[in-house]
Formats: sequence, C-alpha cells, structure tokens
Amino acid sequence: MTQIIIPTEPTGVLNQAWRQCVGTGRMNLALRADYQASLAKVQSDIGFRYIRGHGLLSDDMGIFRQAESVTRYSYTYLDQMVDSFLAVGVKPFLELGFMPSGMASGSDTVFWWKGNITPPADYDQWVRLVQAVLRHLISRYGLAEVATWPIEVWNEPNLTVFWKDADQAEYFRLYDATARAIKQVDATLQVGGPAISPGSDQWYSDFADYVLAHDTPVDFISGHAYASGPTQHIPFGTYQTLEPPQWLLDQFASPRDRIRDKGRLSQLPTHITEFNTSYCPDNPIHDTAYNAAFLAPVVAFGGQYADSYSYWTFCDVFEEANIPTSFFHGGFGLLGYRQIRKPTYHLYAFMAKMGSQIMSSGPDHLVTRHEDGRLTILAWQPLGGTSDGVYGSAPFDHHITVDVNCATDRLAMVRRRVNEHMGNAWTAWRELGRPQAPDLHTLDLLDEASEPVVEHASYLAENGRVNLELTLDQHEVTLIELIPVVAEVHEGLDDGRLLGQEN
Amino acid sequence: MTQIIIPTEPTGVLNQAWRQCVGTGRMNLALRADYQASLAKVQSDIGFRYIRGHGLLSDDMGIFRQAESVTRYSYTYLDQMVDSFLAVGVKPFLELGFMPSGMASGSDTVFWWKGNITPPADYDQWVRLVQAVLRHLISRYGLAEVATWPIEVWNEPNLTVFWKDADQAEYFRLYDATARAIKQVDATLQVGGPAISPGSDQWYSDFADYVLAHDTPVDFISGHAYASGPTQHIPFGTYQTLEPPQWLLDQFASPRDRIRDKGRLSQLPTHITEFNTSYCPDNPIHDTAYNAAFLAPVVAFGGQYADSYSYWTFCDVFEEANIPTSFFHGGFGLLGYRQIRKPTYHLYAFMAKMGSQIMSSGPDHLVTRHEDGRLTILAWQPLGGTSDGVYGSAPFDHHITVDVNCATDRLAMVRRRVNEHMGNAWTAWRELGRPQAPDLHTLDLLDEASEPVVEHASYLAENGRVNLELTLDQHEVTLIELIPVVAEVHEGLDDGRLLGQEN
Amino acid sequence: MTQIIIPTEPTGVLNQAWRQCVGTGRMNLALRADYQASLAKVQSDIGFRYIRGHGLLSDDMGIFRQAESVTRYSYTYLDQMVDSFLAVGVKPFLELGFMPSGMASGSDTVFWWKGNITPPADYDQWVRLVQAVLRHLISRYGLAEVATWPIEVWNEPNLTVFWKDADQAEYFRLYDATARAIKQVDATLQVGGPAISPGSDQWYSDFADYVLAHDTPVDFISGHAYASGPTQHIPFGTYQTLEPPQWLLDQFASPRDRIRDKGRLSQLPTHITEFNTSYCPDNPIHDTAYNAAFLAPVVAFGGQYADSYSYWTFCDVFEEANIPTSFFHGGFGLLGYRQIRKPTYHLYAFMAKMGSQIMSSGPDHLVTRHEDGRLTILAWQPLGGTSDGVYGSAPFDHHITVDVNCATDRLAMVRRRVNEHMGNAWTAWRELGRPQAPDLHTLDLLDEASEPVVEHASYLAENGRVNLELTLDQHEVTLIELIPVVAEVHEGLDDGRLLGQEN
Amino acid sequence: MTQIIIPTEPTGVLNQAWRQCVGTGRMNLALRADYQASLAKVQSDIGFRYIRGHGLLSDDMGIFRQAESVTRYSYTYLDQMVDSFLAVGVKPFLELGFMPSGMASGSDTVFWWKGNITPPADYDQWVRLVQAVLRHLISRYGLAEVATWPIEVWNEPNLTVFWKDADQAEYFRLYDATARAIKQVDATLQVGGPAISPGSDQWYSDFADYVLAHDTPVDFISGHAYASGPTQHIPFGTYQTLEPPQWLLDQFASPRDRIRDKGRLSQLPTHITEFNTSYCPDNPIHDTAYNAAFLAPVVAFGGQYADSYSYWTFCDVFEEANIPTSFFHGGFGLLGYRQIRKPTYHLYAFMAKMGSQIMSSGPDHLVTRHEDGRLTILAWQPLGGTSDGVYGSAPFDHHITVDVNCATDRLAMVRRRVNEHMGNAWTAWRELGRPQAPDLHTLDLLDEASEPVVEHASYLAENGRVNLELTLDQHEVTLIELIPVVAEVHEGLDDGRLLGQEN
Repeated sequence: MTQIIIPTEPTGVLNQAWRQCVGTGRMNLALRADYQASLAKVQSDIGFRYIRGHGLLSDDMGIFRQAESVTRYSYTYLDQMVDSFLAVGVKPFLELGFMPSGMASGSDTVFWWKGNITPPADYDQWVRLVQAVLRHLISRYGLAEVATWPIEVWNEPNLTVFWKDADQAEYFRLYDATARAIKQVDATLQVGGPAISPGSDQWYSDFADYVLAHDTPVDFISGHAYASGPTQHIPFGTYQTLEPPQWLLDQFASPRDRIRDKGRLSQLPTHITEFNTSYCPDNPIHDTAYNAAFLAPVVAFGGQYADSYSYWTFCDVFEEANIPTSFFHGGFGLLGYRQIRKPTYHLYAFMAKMGSQIMSSGPDHLVTRHEDGRLTILAWQPLGGTSDGVYGSAPFDHHITVDVNCATDRLAMVRRRVNEHMGNAWTAWRELGRPQAPDLHTLDLLDEASEPVVEHASYLAENGRVNLELTLDQHEVTLIELIPVVAEVHEGLDDGRLLGQEN
Repeated sequence: MTQIIIPTEPTGVLNQAWRQCVGTGRMNLALRADYQASLAKVQSDIGFRYIRGHGLLSDDMGIFRQAESVTRYSYTYLDQMVDSFLAVGVKPFLELGFMPSGMASGSDTVFWWKGNITPPADYDQWVRLVQAVLRHLISRYGLAEVATWPIEVWNEPNLTVFWKDADQAEYFRLYDATARAIKQVDATLQVGGPAISPGSDQWYSDFADYVLAHDTPVDFISGHAYASGPTQHIPFGTYQTLEPPQWLLDQFASPRDRIRDKGRLSQLPTHITEFNTSYCPDNPIHDTAYNAAFLAPVVAFGGQYADSYSYWTFCDVFEEANIPTSFFHGGFGLLGYRQIRKPTYHLYAFMAKMGSQIMSSGPDHLVTRHEDGRLTILAWQPLGGTSDGVYGSAPFDHHITVDVNCATDRLAMVRRRVNEHMGNAWTAWRELGRPQAPDLHTLDLLDEASEPVVEHASYLAENGRVNLELTLDQHEVTLIELIPVVAEVHEGLDDGRLLGQEN
Repeated sequence: MTQIIIPTEPTGVLNQAWRQCVGTGRMNLALRADYQASLAKVQSDIGFRYIRGHGLLSDDMGIFRQAESVTRYSYTYLDQMVDSFLAVGVKPFLELGFMPSGMASGSDTVFWWKGNITPPADYDQWVRLVQAVLRHLISRYGLAEVATWPIEVWNEPNLTVFWKDADQAEYFRLYDATARAIKQVDATLQVGGPAISPGSDQWYSDFADYVLAHDTPVDFISGHAYASGPTQHIPFGTYQTLEPPQWLLDQFASPRDRIRDKGRLSQLPTHITEFNTSYCPDNPIHDTAYNAAFLAPVVAFGGQYADSYSYWTFCDVFEEANIPTSFFHGGFGLLGYRQIRKPTYHLYAFMAKMGSQIMSSGPDHLVTRHEDGRLTILAWQPLGGTSDGVYGSAPFDHHITVDVNCATDRLAMVRRRVNEHMGNAWTAWRELGRPQAPDLHTLDLLDEASEPVVEHASYLAENGRVNLELTLDQHEVTLIELIPVVAEVHEGLDDGRLLGQEN
Repeated sequence: MTQIIIPTEPTGVLNQAWRQCVGTGRMNLALRADYQASLAKVQSDIGFRYIRGHGLLSDDMGIFRQAESVTRYSYTYLDQMVDSFLAVGVKPFLELGFMPSGMASGSDTVFWWKGNITPPADYDQWVRLVQAVLRHLISRYGLAEVATWPIEVWNEPNLTVFWKDADQAEYFRLYDATARAIKQVDATLQVGGPAISPGSDQWYSDFADYVLAHDTPVDFISGHAYASGPTQHIPFGTYQTLEPPQWLLDQFASPRDRIRDKGRLSQLPTHITEFNTSYCPDNPIHDTAYNAAFLAPVVAFGGQYADSYSYWTFCDVFEEANIPTSFFHGGFGLLGYRQIRKPTYHLYAFMAKMGSQIMSSGPDHLVTRHEDGRLTILAWQPLGGTSDGVYGSAPFDHHITVDVNCATDRLAMVRRRVNEHMGNAWTAWRELGRPQAPDLHTLDLLDEASEPVVEHASYLAENGRVNLELTLDQHEVTLIELIPVVAEVHEGLDDGRLLGQEN
C-alpha cells in the first residue's frame, strides 16, 4: 500500500524527453497508408517530436539510381516521406544507412528486406550521396528546419548483422567521412553516433577517444537499450526473459556516464535511439498490459538519464522478420494494424495528458499539476520482469491512497484504466479465438475493447483535504485526473424532483 | 431474477419501425453546423429513415417572399436543408406549417421563434404555395424520390397553441384543400394527418369520418404520444410526473385502433410522428439514464403497434422555449450540444446493432440473432415512471440469467453498459459542478464519460450450452453480443511463456 | 499602354492591412454550416486575421436571458461562434451591440432580424452584461488571447436606423460607460469607436474631443467607407451610382486625418471596419468582375491609409434585407452560397499570393518579389465607377508591358485570369438563365466557371532581360507569377523523338 | 472540317465497357498512401468498376508463409488491399500470379521487384494456396460479392519474361489445375485466360481448343493490346514508334473473332486486361496531350469490340523498371505522383460525363444525350501515330461545326479543353525546367496547370436550331455540354443599370 501525500508546491518540472523521439519500421514503409494513418493517430494522441528508422538510403527508397553511365539522386519517395512526417507535426531523426547496393563493397544484407550492411566501395561516392541528399532537403525544407534534424551515422555497427564484421575501425572511418561531409554542407547540421546496441558500452569510450583524437565533428551520442534475454523460438514467434525496468534506466544512463570525462563531448546530448522490453519483432510481450506497466517507470522517469529515448516502434507496420502472419504477432508497435491501440500506447497517451509541474513521484506513481490547477496521477502496478514468475502471477490488485489538499468544496475525478481486461484489445482478441485475419466486425470489437475504461466520481473536501483510495488491477496503468470544482448555480434544480415528486 | 432460455429457432422478425423516423427542432435549424454534425453522427451510429420537424413554411425558411407587388417562392434554405438530409441518408417527413406571415389570417404565434398558427387568409394562395414547393422538390430530386416522402398537414391542430382556437372544422378545411392540392401535383404523393397531440383521440375518428364523407385523399394517419403529467416550473426548467411505459405503447396503438372500422382507411399506415417521456424541452429527465431504461421497452416493442414512432428529437439544437441557458438543460435531444451522447442515444445505437431474427423478448430484454450466428441481447432495468418513487430509488441491481446453446467450444461476449455511472455524461457533468458553458477540456471529459463501458470475456461451452449471469446497475441499458468462437491454431503459442519461463 | 520596368531592388514592403479584417452577417449566422464552410474556404485561400459583424448581444445569440426573477448570461452560441472562428485561424473583432430586448429602453429595431437599436434602460445592467461576456471569454480563451481582440462600441450611431435618433450625446454616454467597464475587467483589453458610416466625418473630431475631455479610454478609431450613391429600388434588388475608387481611399484616410492633432489619440490605429462598393445587400454589382477590378487599387493600396479595411462581407449568408430570393442576388459576399467564388474573391486570393517586397506599383498594377526570387504581378483594368458609362462599356482590352531582369536563362510564367468571361460564375449563371435555385448539376457548372483561367508559358532571357506583353480583357484582374528557371538535366531526353522518330 | 448534325432521336446506347476495368502497379503498391489517394480521386472523377494488377501471390504480399515445418496463409495485406478497393467503389479483377518463391520450381524473376515466373514445384501446393485465398475472400466478403470478381490465370504466358520458356503446354497445365481448383471452391466463381500479350493471337485458338478438348472451365477470354513498336532506350527512358489507333481497336476485336467458332466459348465475354499506346513504363508519350487525343476514339468506341479494355495504369505508383527518377518520367498513370492529372485522365473524366444515348459519332467526335435533355459532345483532333511525323507537327487547329435543334429560346454551352497548353501539367513542367523533384509550390502550379480550361457562352436559337463552330487546338480533347435554357423571371433586373445609369 503506497501512500501519496501531495504537497502544495511542485518538486520539479516534467521534461519532454519521453516524447522526443519514436521508432519506425524502414523508411519505405512510411509510404504506406496504414502507416500514415497510424502516425496521424499517434501524433494526435501523443505528439512525438522526432521519428527514426532504418533504410533511408536502401534501394527501395530509390535515391541512388544508375542507368548506363548516368547516376541520378532521386527524391520522389524521400520527399513523400518527409512531407508526410511534417504534415503530422513530427520531424525526421535521420539515420544514414544502409548501403545502396550500387555502391556497396559487398553483398551481405540484414532483414527480410535485405538492407546492405557493407561499407561503401568508394567513400567519395558515399560522401557525394550524403551531401546530395542533405542539400536537397535543405533546398526543399530550408536550412533552419533541417538543422533541427539530428543525423545519426549507421545503426548498431557493433553487431555483425548490421555492419560487416562489426569492424570498429571501419565504422570510425565511415563516421569520420560522413560527419565531415555533413559539416561541409553546413556547419549547423547535427551529427552523431555510434548508435550501438546494448552490451558493448566500451564503444562509447572508444568512439569518444576516436573523435577527440581526430577532431571529428560530433553533436550527440547515441545508443540503444533493451531488457530481454536470449531468444526462444516458436513458429512465427519468440519468447524471452526480461530484466527489471531499472536495467533499462541504467542503459539510458550509460552514454552520459561514458562521456562525462571526454572533454568537449562531456556536455553533449545523449539519445537512446531505440528501446523496448524485447528486441524481437515477434515477441507477444509487446501486445500486453504487462509491457505497459513494466515500462511505466521507464517512460515516466527516463528523462533523468538521457535527452531522449525512442520507443521502438510506433506501429506494427514493420517487416524485418518478414511479413507478419497474424493480426497480433508480438510486433513492436504502440499501435497494431488498423490503428488498434495496445496497452503501451495508452501509457504514452496518458503521459501526454500530464502537467508540467511534478508534485510527487515514486515506484508506482507520478503526480503532476497543470497550469489550471488540475492534478494528474499516473499510477501502475510495479513489475520486475521474469522475476515476477509465470505471466499473470502478479497480484490481482495494488493499493494506493492519495491525500490531496482542495481549496474548493469538491474534487471531481476522472480515471482511465488499462489492465489485463480493460483497454486491452489483445485480451479480447484471445477471447475471440486469436483470429489471424479478423473480419471487419471483429476489428470493430477490438477497437471498442482497446478503449480505456473511464470511471468518474466527485468527492467533498473535509477540512480542505480529500482522501482517495485507488485499487489497481493486475498489470494496470491508470491515469487519474483531479479537478477542483466550484458548483454553478441552477436556481430551483433538484434531482429529487426528476420524476415529478414535489418535495 | 429473469431467466432467458434462448431457443434454437427464431420467434419472429424485428421490424424497422423503431428507426423509421426521428424528430428535429424547426427546419431553419437544419442549416446549423452543430445540427448537421449531430445528424451525421446519429445517421452513422443509428440510421433513421426519415426526419420530421416544424416550421417548413415559416418566415425564417424564406420560401414565401413578397416585394412590392411581386411574389416569389424561394428555395435557397429549403434546398440546403434537403441536400444536407439526403447527404447523410435521411429523407424528409414533410410537415406543412406554420403559416407564412404574409398570407396569414391572424397574428397569433407559437414558440419563441413565433410560428404563425392561423389559417391562411386566402386558401388559394396557400394551395399555390404548397404546390409550388412540391413541384420544386420534384424538379430537383425527382418524383420517384419525393413520392417516398410523407406529407403531414399541420401540427397538433387540436391544441389552441398550435392552431387558432383548435378549430376542428377549420383544420379539416385546411386538410381537404391541402390534400387535394398535393394529389393535383401528383397522385403518388403521400398525404396524411391529423397530427394530434395525446388526449384527443376522438379526433382520429372525426378525421376519418370527415375524409370518408368528403372523399378527401389520405395515405396515412398520424398523432403524438407523451408520458408526462402537468408541468412544474422552475427557472429555465420543468419537472413532471411520468406514466409507465405501457402508457406510450397504448398511445402508439390508438390511431390503428380508431381506424380499424373506417372503410378505406382501415389498412392505412399509422405514424406516431412525435413521442418522448416529457413534452417539455427543458425537463432534465431527457438527459438521464432513467429516460433510456424507461423507454427501452417502448423502442424495442413499439413496432407492434405503429408503423413508425419518432423520438422527439435527435439533438438539443432546439429553440421552442427560447435558447437554452445551460449545456445540459433537459433538452429533447438524443445528442446534447457538441454531439455529446445521452443515455437514450445509446439505447438507439444499441438497437441499430440488433439482428433481424427475434429469439426471445420480455419485460426486461430483447434477444436477436444475426445472419452470421451472433446473438445480441438488449437488456434493461424495468421502470415504471413516477410510481418508482423519488429519482434514484430503483434497485441498485437487476439480475438476468441467459442460457444459450453453443455449437462451438467457446462463446465470446462483448458487453456495452449505460447506467447512472457508465456511459453517462450527465452524471459526469453534475460531478464537474454542472457548468453552464463547459470549457473545451470539460467537453472532452464529457465525451469520454459518454462512452459506454465495454466489458468482454469468453465462456467454455458445457454440453453444448453456456450459462451467463448478468447484473444490471440502476437504470441500466446494456447490449450484450455473444459470438460463437472457433480458436485458430498458433503453433507453439503459450501465454505461460510470455516472461520467458520455459515450461 | 502601361510600361512596367521592374527594378532590381524593392521599393517598399507590402503591409498586411488588406487582410487584417473581414465583415460578416450577424453573429447568429456564424452557427450555420454554409457559413462555416465558406469561412473555412476563405481562410484557406485568403487568411484574414479578424472577422467583425453585428448582433453579438442580440436576442438570437441567447446571451442575456431572464426567467421569472432570475437573470443568466448564457454562452452556448457565443462559444460555438468563437470556437469555430479560432478553428479556422481567424479572431473576433468584437462589435458590442445591438441591445438585448430585455434591457432595452425602447422597441425600435433595424433589419429583418430586428436588432434593437435603443440605449439600455439601465446602464448598470448593460455594464454587467459587457463585463460578464468579457470575463467569460477570458476564462475560456485566456487573457493573452482576448487582449488581441479589438472591441468596438456599437455600429453607425450617426444613423437613425442604427441608433435611436442618432443621438450623439447618448452614444458618447454609451461609449464612455462601456470603455470604462472594459478597462475595469482588464486594462489590456482594446476598445474603440465611433464606428460611423461615411458622410459624418465630423463625428471623428467630436468623438476625439469627448474622450479627451472625459479621459475616456480609447485604443483605436473606427469608421466605414462605401462608394455608392442613392438607392434605385427594383423588386428584390437595388441599383446605385458609384464614385471612383479614390473616393474609398479618401474615406480610409479620414479617421487618421481627423485625429492627427488630437493629443494622445494622434498615433492610434484607425480601422475601416466596413467597406465595399455598394452598401446594399441586394445590389448585383457585388457579383461582377467590375466590382473586383474597381476595388483592385483599393485593396492593393489601402494599407497606406488605414491599419485595416474590412470587406463587407466574406459570404452571402446574410439576412439584413430578409432572406435572399435568388442564388445570385447582389449579396455582399466574396463567396456566394455554396462556396461559389465571385470575382472579388479572386482579387483577395490573388493578394494572398503576393510577396512581401514591393517592386513596382501604379494605377493598374502592383508587383512584388518573394523570398525565393519569384515575382508576382497583380494587374487590373483601371475603372472609374459611374463615369465609365453603362455597364460593359469599358474597353475590351488593356495593354501592359513588363520588362524584367532575369539572372537565369529562362523565365516561366503562370497567369490566372478573372474577367467578364473567365473565373466568372455570375456570367455563367446569366447564360444558364439566372436560375434562382440552381439544381446540383448547375451548381457544379457554376463552380467550374468560377475557377480562374490559367495560362502558362516560358520565355528565354535576352541579355539578362525578358519582355512580356500582357493583354487584359474587359474588367480583368489578373495574377502573373514569374519564376526564374534553371532547367534540369535529363540525359537523352528529346521531345522530337516522342513518336519514335529517330533524329 | 467536320459537320455534325445532331438528330432528334438517339442512334444507340453508350455501353460502359470503357470503365469496366483499369490497370494498376503490383498489388503490394495498393498499400501505399499516394496510391490510395490517387485511386480515390480516380474513382470520384471516373468510377471504374474493376482494377487489375500483377503480384497478388508474390512474396511481398506475404500470403504464403513458412516457418520451420509450418505453412500459413496470411491475409493481412490482402485484406488491406481489398478493403481499400471496396471503400472507393472498385472491385478486384484478380490475376493469379506470380509464384511465391517458397513453392517455385525455379528462380527466374521479372521486374525490379522480382516476381517469380516459374511453374509451381508442386501443383497440389499451388492449388491449396489458390483455394485458401478464395475461401478466405468468400468468408470475409461473401460469395455473392466474390463471384462478381473475375479470376485470370497468370499474365502474358506467351512471353519468356513472364513465364518460364513461354511454355504453352505448361501454361495450359497451370490453367487447367487452377480453373478446376476454383470451381471446386464454388462453381459460380468466374475464371479465364490466357492473358496474352499482343502478337501471339494464335494462342487464343490454341487455348480454346485446349479447354474444349479437356472440358476445362472457362468464363472469359483475355488478352492485351499495345500500339507501340520496338524500344529505343535513353537513360531512364524509352521512345517508340506508334501504330494508328485502329491498330488497338483491331486487337480489342481479336479474342472475340478467334472464339467465334469455338462452341461453348463463342459467346463468352472478352476482356482486354491491359492496353495503352506504349507498353513501357518510361515512355514520355504517356504524359502528353497527344496520348489523350490518340486514344480518344479507342476509349470512345472500344466497347463495340470487347467487353472491357483496361487502361494500363491508373497512376504512376509503379516500379517495374525500378523506382522512377523524375516526377514526370513517362509512367503509365492517368495520374502522375501526387494526384497530378495527365491529359489522358481528362479523356476518361470527360467520358464519365457523357450521357447514355448516342446521338452521333465519327472519327473526331461522340455526341450523347442525357435523361434531362442535355447534350454532351466529346471531340478530339484525330491522330495517326508515327505517321503524323515528328511530335508536334499535327495541325494547330481542327474545325467542327455542330447543328443542334433547340426547343427552348437559348442554349447554354460549357466547354472544357485539354491540349498542348491547356489542362496540361506536362507542358507546364517543361516550362518550369523539368524538375525531377518539384518543390511544394511547383506541385501547386502543376496542379493548377492540369485543370482543363473552361469556356462558356450561350446561343439564341434561330428557327429552333443553334449552329456552333468549334476550333480544337493541337492534340486537343474537349468536352462540350449543351444545356437548353429557359430564362427565369427577375422583375426589374437590367444589367445596363449596374452602374446606376437609369435608362
């Protein structure tokens, strides 16, 4: 039983690192209608600032084109992508990669969609491509705009699946050439790396030493964070163990820790450009309420450790491990196909309803106040990953009491609930027989089931205070809004007379 | 405790009389944006066939215009109105009235908006107007279309507030002249009356005798039904006693009963062109869950008594007793301002989700089956009006058990609930201090609170049957969908492994 | 023949006074769907900053309500109106009037919709109303926002039709009481007057003397401007003579001239809160290309004389002289019903495409340059009003040559044309037999006919210059865009080979 | 000079074969936002009944999936595709192909997107796939619906690029197995072939003989038609010679001719499931007005020769020869990227405005009458392909006179024009320097330039007739609407008084 006593003055300010960035499937998928509808919904309910994904320079974006002896840089799809992002108020966080096959030094690829992971055969050709793309973007969107788009060099070069032999020296060569090329276009453009996966934090130090030694430009440090253990395969799926949430926060902190003593790098922003529970696009944990409650403290408090942490990914339009075979399939998305909201979507949508002043925080809650005096409480059942035991063995309720001072006579409360049976399309989908291709009526039912349950009430203040008791169900994330109420005068109104009973 | 045992074969067919028609504020209001947005929502969720309201010929529709010696019939607003209706799939149920002041015999008016209630000074002028309007509609929308629009002559001529001196002979003169004028335009146009208010049922017989004696055209018989007693005024509001629901059904039956032995009239369709609990546009009962549960049997079973019964009205854009002074004000609307759904809206939206085959019905439920095998159960707490005692003294729960045969292994259930605290914006509004002009954030909260609460579960069949126990809360109307489920095969899937626990 | 030689450096900056404000029919009409669709279109194509109209406090806005002994201020319609304005990016320019009948000292009214034009029976009651409205607006939209909304006291008090006896002393009393009431709510709110009609400019001086003598708050000076002579009535219409365009510009200048030596008033902004050719809502001149060409220099150059000049009105949803009887009826609107664009709409839409730097101006043209180097030329046939002779006797063409320097090889030109037969729905409507209530197909034809004709070409530069010859047709307003072109390389492309003819 | 004398009675009925079907890029592209926006526009302006394209069963649709030993049929993308089609009122014309790589007998592929063109390794596996897909579609959309979707077996098996070795016997084996599998699902499903490219018409006879000999089900015969000669490559483009339009009509006729004496096949419908001028997706002819005028008689009269003829394709979202490198690039689309309308789009949009009664037809025109008495004239400059000489050497005008009887006093005319400089975004694009990636402002200019120029006038009848003289510009296609006019009475209206000149 947690007891929250809300003070009268704020204890801090809620920074916006939690919505600074979100991940996406490969950039070609940004041309899809389902993707764009999903992004529009995400932006309307959550409002991320940046979006980052792989494959900007891969063949299916059609940028690097050759015919006979002629080379063209072609921007039809790039422009469609950026236009569609800006139209819904999100900016690109550019990741430069993978290698266009026409300029690659080898034929190794990653993913079903075959991103080429080899260095350029000719670094000058690569530099010309990077500069051409940036100059085009500047001419179309203006330097002032493009200078706000971070540019990250490659993805997870510390893994052999993403970078030929995970060759660190070759990555540093790529980074150096690319960073200089970018600054040559314009010195205000922002470049960074090394975009590593978890478990190779030494790369942060090595990268810092390299750029210091070579006077290479760098504007931010980036890396990834995941909480999952080794993969256990099933057909079209994966299970994994999970470390506790603090594991993720520790990873968020790592880049900042590693550059603390690295001279001009020490004050640079650090970006966690990917994070999630599991790094597998077919682990069903992503579809659950557990995922939301597990990540609640990570999303709520991550801003203390990094300048951004980008949920991987905003929707299930994603094809790294081939095209999914089932409606729910353990995809990364906050949204499933057809804009069906998963529990973790609600966690983010709840965060978007929080105020700017932090009033209280703890292992199962964050309380904020708004300019207009309203309080919002984000609360969750605290979870620990695999140490919780078999899925579903967490307690069936979690109790919190809240003690609020109230200057008016009354406090109205509106609560939205997401747990194993509320605001949970995945549970409804299981009850409906786990249809791989739901019909249109079932899609409507899933959409209804994904709506958080709303409860509301009002409380009379006693001695200027109101005391609330909250019960959270298993794996619950809940948002409670408390509104000081001054009742308006309706002369003669008396609900007791509604059936004509004269009192 | 009701016990429903659902048979394997249907007992009847659910006719569509319940959505044949809906009422509206005066026709000029059809030009309003809030009105049109409300009608679009109603049509999307419910789908009425016809819409009927007053004031088609009143001055603010601008149809009958005179300047110096020139008379013009002007259709700018009429066309906007009809175009907007057809665009959302609803047809006009034309009510001819009130009198354009330029051709009226007197200056008596009704309502804040001053509809002139006197006979025409010159019946020929009236006939020319009626014929001009109909000819215009036919030229714009085609005879085949217009011939499907019933044309009702005047409104409640049995009341002195609506027809000068409630002069029956004068009304019959008006009806006769109008009906002949209409048939002169085209014999396939449908005309009817006498559109009387409750309590004067002798008019049905008198009207029948008149048209038989004078060989006057008539295609349908119409009248109104309300359940409320005398008005108890408060500032900007009214309270009234309520007769039980059967009172309304008896009124629905009255026109059919009265024409049963009236020769060529005996088989004519009968239309209840207005009904509601209270006939006052400022009685807060309209905003309540009580109103929905009270009317549930009326809406569910009314089709046994009349060919249509038109809920008065679809939205709160309505000005008969001046412009309302508060967001919730006891208006007739299924929707409040800004498309906020009232409980009775959900009753209709639930009916729109029912199947075509009746499987069971009773004083607290209606069960239907769909083509695809799904069952839908509409259930409600049975209510009796003022005899229930002070508002809120109905029992806090109502129990129903349902016994269903189930050919598959499992039955999924999705339930939507509306009662005093679920799907109830009015209750939330009271908790929020009854704001007369809610701010934008409060409007969002009211919209969230108006969403029915969704619950879902699945049941294993035992011996081919499933037994459900339902508890309804006070004043609840609920819609339960039962879906036979065949689980799909997902090889290897095992929710127990979600946290990586190898079993 | 005008010769325009465009210099290489700008001669000035185009201020935005031309789109600072636009007029509207009475505020109740802002609730209409046709109105809101029209305003959305106007804002998308033109983008006015403010909108001003009559009747904010009239009975049909429902703000001042009394029942028995209870008074309520009710904001349902006011909020709908302001919300709808802000949603399309335009702010209210508040005009306080007319008198709610419940607090009026008399029963005199103006217009078909009966705005009460008498002083308040009790000035304290008026002050309470004004303050309540402003406090409500501030609580809903914030003081920072509302403080940007000018507040004008009454309309044309110098006319007996708008203010009982055109009593100047009584108006000054009203102004004084209102201005002080406003500043009591918040000193940053902006108040002004005297909102007079043309022909009584002495009121400007009297008003200035009054406020100086009484230390009355005032933040801006306002008045109106029209170019038309006495009315010649026909059934449902009016004809009038027209003074030349300069007449309007002289009226624009008048308030500024009259306060030049009035102490603290001398630097106040001056707003022409209404202007048009004719002040009659049924003068067909408003529907013509003549109206657009006549007003072109007024709209283009008016910003030299006043801080705003508000075209009266943005659309034909307007009922001062009763409800119009015909689709085109000489209404004030830039848009006719159903969003049909009139020629003067295009004049404004063309202005919205002008650049910020003035390169050249003259009696038949205005040339601007954009940040990206494009030039835009607004040109028109110069017109003089009634002195032009019978309508249609202006010359059938008007010649202009333009000499432009061009740093690239080529200049592309895109021209949009509006004249008696291009971009002219009114002409098409006449050809179609002037239908009073056009059917849906005819409405489509009118919409097509209202589209400006687009012409395009490209010109090779000779010695760094391009010389264009433009011919304008009768009553033409045209917008020409000149774009410096650098042709892109398409290796091998040769239009001569399109039919496979190998060269 | 053509002289058209329009008779008083129709000479025939215009059938709807011209809009029976349209082509599309591979089915995976149907998931794209630009594609769906384009299809919505096409359907709104033209309204095709069916849509056909390649790659339904290719890997990027994700239907045939294998993991370890498990096979799944997965319909996520298929459902998104069909849902999106039906939502805009177009049905799929199913083409079964290409081979999922997981069941292919070889690795040969066609196109940049690598459609596998080899027979199945195991025909039983293929049959199971085909049946699974059809059963899914029937369960989701209903048999009544799916039975209206033609199913075509493979594409152009007579070409080695599309079918391994163009092996006729193997194709017949595939056809036979597939047709029988389809009929096994349901006998009402419609199956056909052989979907051959032009120049191998003997296949029609061979196919007929085969199915007759083997009693193979067949419901329609299909093939393709193109007018272009051998390819002349340039970088990222192609030029070709063109045969005259009659060449296409002859090909339309071929299947019907070839089955005339083939027993039960003789009355089968024949579908030209692809046609265009050039079969290359990078031949700039597709972007021109020439293409529209050349195809005008083909589109207008093709319905005399075949039951459908499907323009290949509706939009430029198409990747067969890799991703296009330039905005205009000679793509097949009626629409370019971003919904920019090409001249041939207007040809189809004009056809959609034609009436049902044919009044006159000839080598440069088709005249129809509508139910309401309006006449529509589609006229064009007749063109002959490469025999016209170098592109642009056709005459600069083409004259037609039209003699119409007119029962009213007046005839209103509205004309829309598309030619080398009107309604022609491609010409404007060339003037603007052929930008490969136009900026947003240029896209707006192209959209404006793509709007047909509208002209309107009215003519007084003399002796009940009106005589019109039309001049068409080079490569023009024009639509002329003639509307009998009865002028309405506006008492006192006199345009001569518009400037207040009293007559």
